[in-house]
Amino acid sequence: MMNAGKYRRQYFMPPERCMDWTEKEYVDKAPIWCSVDLRDGNQALVIPMSLEQKVEFFKLLVKIGFKEIEVGFPAASETEYNFLRTLIDQNLIPEDVTIQVLTQAREHIIKKTFEAVKGAPRAIIHLYNSTSLSQREQVFQKSKEEIKQLAVDGAILLKRLASETEGNFLFEYSPESFTGTEPEYALEVCNAVLDVWNPTEDKKAIINLPVTVQHSMPHVYASQIEYMCKHMRYRENVLVSLHPHNDRGCGVADAEMGILAGADRIEGTLFGNGERTGNVDIVTLAMNMYSQGVDPELDFSDMPEICEKYEEYTGMNIDERSPYSGALVFAAFSGSHQDAIAKGMHYRDERDPDHWTVPYLPIDPTDIGRNYDADVIRINSQSGKGGVGYILETKYGLNLPAKMREAMGYVAKGVSDHVHKELMPEEIFELFKKNFENVVKPLSINEVHFQQTGEGITTQVTSTFKGKKIVTEAKGNGRLNAVSNALKKAYGMKYDLITYQEHALEQSSSSRAIAYVGIRKPDGGLSWGAGVDQDIIRASIDALVTAINNR
Amino acid sequence: MMNAGKYRRQYFMPPERCMDWTEKEYVDKAPIWCSVDLRDGNQALVIPMSLEQKVEFFKLLVKIGFKEIEVGFPAASETEYNFLRTLIDQNLIPEDVTIQVLTQAREHIIKKTFEAVKGAPRAIIHLYNSTSLSQREQVFQKSKEEIKQLAVDGAILLKRLASETEGNFLFEYSPESFTGTEPEYALEVCNAVLDVWNPTEDKKAIINLPVTVQHSMPHVYASQIEYMCKHMRYRENVLVSLHPHNDRGCGVADAEMGILAGADRIEGTLFGNGERTGNVDIVTLAMNMYSQGVDPELDFSDMPEICEKYEEYTGMNIDERSPYSGALVFAAFSGSHQDAIAKGMHYRDERDPDHWTVPYLPIDPTDIGRNYDADVIRINSQSGKGGVGYILETKYGLNLPAKMREAMGYVAKGVSDHVHKELMPEEIFELFKKNFENVVKPLSINEVHFQQTGEGITTQVTSTFKGKKIVTEAKGNGRLNAVSNALKKAYGMKYDLITYQEHALEQSSSSRAIAYVGIRKPDGGLSWGAGVDQDIIRASIDALVTAINNR
Repeated sequence: MMNAGKYRRQYFMPPERCMDWTEKEYVDKAPIWCSVDLRDGNQALVIPMSLEQKVEFFKLLVKIGFKEIEVGFPAASETEYNFLRTLIDQNLIPEDVTIQVLTQAREHIIKKTFEAVKGAPRAIIHLYNSTSLSQREQVFQKSKEEIKQLAVDGAILLKRLASETEGNFLFEYSPESFTGTEPEYALEVCNAVLDVWNPTEDKKAIINLPVTVQHSMPHVYASQIEYMCKHMRYRENVLVSLHPHNDRGCGVADAEMGILAGADRIEGTLFGNGERTGNVDIVTLAMNMYSQGVDPELDFSDMPEICEKYEEYTGMNIDERSPYSGALVFAAFSGSHQDAIAKGMHYRDERDPDHWTVPYLPIDPTDIGRNYDADVIRINSQSGKGGVGYILETKYGLNLPAKMREAMGYVAKGVSDHVHKELMPEEIFELFKKNFENVVKPLSINEVHFQQTGEGITTQVTSTFKGKKIVTEAKGNGRLNAVSNALKKAYGMKYDLITYQEHALEQSSSSRAIAYVGIRKPDGGLSWGAGVDQDIIRASIDALVTAINNR
Repeated sequence: MMNAGKYRRQYFMPPERCMDWTEKEYVDKAPIWCSVDLRDGNQALVIPMSLEQKVEFFKLLVKIGFKEIEVGFPAASETEYNFLRTLIDQNLIPEDVTIQVLTQAREHIIKKTFEAVKGAPRAIIHLYNSTSLSQREQVFQKSKEEIKQLAVDGAILLKRLASETEGNFLFEYSPESFTGTEPEYALEVCNAVLDVWNPTEDKKAIINLPVTVQHSMPHVYASQIEYMCKHMRYRENVLVSLHPHNDRGCGVADAEMGILAGADRIEGTLFGNGERTGNVDIVTLAMNMYSQGVDPELDFSDMPEICEKYEEYTGMNIDERSPYSGALVFAAFSGSHQDAIAKGMHYRDERDPDHWTVPYLPIDPTDIGRNYDADVIRINSQSGKGGVGYILETKYGLNLPAKMREAMGYVAKGVSDHVHKELMPEEIFELFKKNFENVVKPLSINEVHFQQTGEGITTQVTSTFKGKKIVTEAKGNGRLNAVSNALKKAYGMKYDLITYQEHALEQSSSSRAIAYVGIRKPDGGLSWGAGVDQDIIRASIDALVTAINNR
């Protein structure tokens, strides 16, 4: 039963207005990216990854360009411990990559963490404890002072063990459930931890302000981040990090607005994997920057391969509508969208090949390894002339007159509506041939002879109509015109020849051409035909005959 | 190949700063909801819905509580035309529901639309034309004036046909691709349309400002909306509507911030279906309000049924991490999360049953027809004491001592890590019984006799250890203590009895009880056992023996 009365807002506004970030419009520089796929992502799977899968996933993250990778909670399970030791002992961590390990602010866990990470070339030790009102009251039953002391004690132990352990260690602290914590109190705890660590320019500390659960709108979170950034001690030696989850569907907005509000670093996952609704999707964040002309410093140029590996390792499916990565996110079924895309692609080819402003496509799908044919223009009963014309042109080299594209669009729409399925390009092409190319019933031409005279062209046409053969002579100012006149004369047909176009069929090995003919019927409607032949005259006559047969 | 240099930002800032909306924190009132599932959603499917599926979907939308439902583009396809006529002719539109039909600003399409909608009890005619810079340049090759005239001509025709057609019509206008349009120009076009319609309090007009493609961050969109609202003519008689898509993963933020900036109405779909990355997800919007104590005026109390029907009609899958609706969005596998949830549920039961502030769960899953057992606490190798303890308690009535829960947590985690799969509640229970209940090897008890004396209890214990039977006598200040002393004496065992707890097994038909015993070994480690029997003395002895056998 739905009863909104049992809920209250669980976030806290900063004690002063912090909306300076709204002066900025967009993210103009890539943050430091930290992947938490191997912790948050793994933690969220019905079946967590095996050691081998985690090693392969780690390599994928390195290839994409992540320089900071959280590899788990080594004090928490054998698999995570063994994974970390495998990375270190088999030298799988490149020189420019820093691993990160998570630990609660509890003595025996911190100690076990340092044992696990021994000998790592470079590691971030990520300390956390929960600071929210609800966790203080319900889970820990401790006062603000006691909770702060937990963090400080953890920070002291980290500092001591780091100095005693072989390796190169950086520190990160998260007031977990930050979004349910009073900002003044979160600030107090973070500053107390920083006072222990005393970060310097050479050895910065990371303060991570997670959206453990999304409780507010993104501008509220951004104002919390701005407040923290404005009042944090050692700010110049602190990297402020965000770790947004997605409970309200606003993980991306939280991350982007948090960056405008001062954050330097983002923790997230590929495709937004992670507990419950997941973490912020780093693919979307990076590609959002990219689509506005900002280099994200991550490489998604082979998105299909990244998707495939991700699905293999995690057992998860990437949603068909997941921004930039989903199977359907470039698909245009709607006729008007297809028409605009086709025109936009022409405009780009002809007028502005160095920029991408094609309508309905925020980025060029080929930038990330997708393609126009299979992914963009797709034909079903919602489609129209634009899409069908685009497919016939780009895939089969057929450049139909505008109004003929419309007629072909209706044919395809009708078939798709009737058979209730998507039509593939080859099916479209077959429909075109069947309906518009060299149709010879009920009228067909047996023989045509031309004679050039001073007044124009004279033709003698032998044609068959419903099985009856007839020979007719007529004149015209051109060959097609003369044939048309002969046919009108033979059968008393009434129409106007209104469109004639032709072009070579480049994709064909022989030197064939295609001609398109449109006629206007007495009722004002149009009828269309095409003819294909090595002889362009023959092609045009076949086109005319087809148009007549299609009346 | 990724090359950010080919992109530029395609949105336009308003000519004045419009960030007043940031004074507001949250959406405090439900907007007018308009479902576009039967148009945008249908348009986006590889196989569009059949007439029958659309009718069923329409009924589902009505049941959820939508009062405005866009039913398609009836001038565009036979199926959509027939669907609209079915709704009207079969009286399927409830009195309090208004249907909406879409039409381009083109004369023959507007005319066909009015024919299709004839006799509807009440209908919104939704007129649109594209106004963005890129569409003006690339698709229409028309000037600003010409594009505005298209809109005005359409508006005039709507007004005329509405007065000539049977039915009750409201008007909506969308400057399509608003997010790629200069705000001053969009305002000019909208005001020109409003001048034609001249909306009144009794007959308001809808101006819809779509995020046809997401080009900017959400605060930029909100500032565009604020600008439009501040300068729109007839503002008090206009319903400002939003129609966000999700290309940058920010559809929800666009909608929510747009509402703060002045919008009255939201067009979206269930689960964010729609072209490419989809429309804004109305489920998320509504439940976001709900989770902050605001009645969304839509009913999602049977979410599983809504999900099932949606998937059946559309052929789409709801992503496992889709906010509020996905299969995994309430799942907690992590030990610390499970522990906090279990404590939060206890806190709620005991201290604040009328409110929901349980950590890690933004809403009570049972509010929308989900349940705690199957959906929340799930056990795999990432889990720990909290989850296992919660399941044993809530599902099997076993209230283990805190430290024993920890031991049981390690057992479950180890098994799950080893077999590489999730453990179901019954598997957890079996593991508990196998490992901790009445374990009789290598030590077992054959017979026990007690005698009460002035100094305490004297016992005579017959026990078997590794096949060898022995009888021992000992004293103690209680029965269990006496038995323990007898066993220590018999076998020279060293341990301290540190925990003893018992409770009735309420779920059992017989009046059995369970006893839990914890002992500390000489190395400081703990060992645990439980015993179940109708006789609580026998149960406690079995628990002790099990703890000894588990050393």
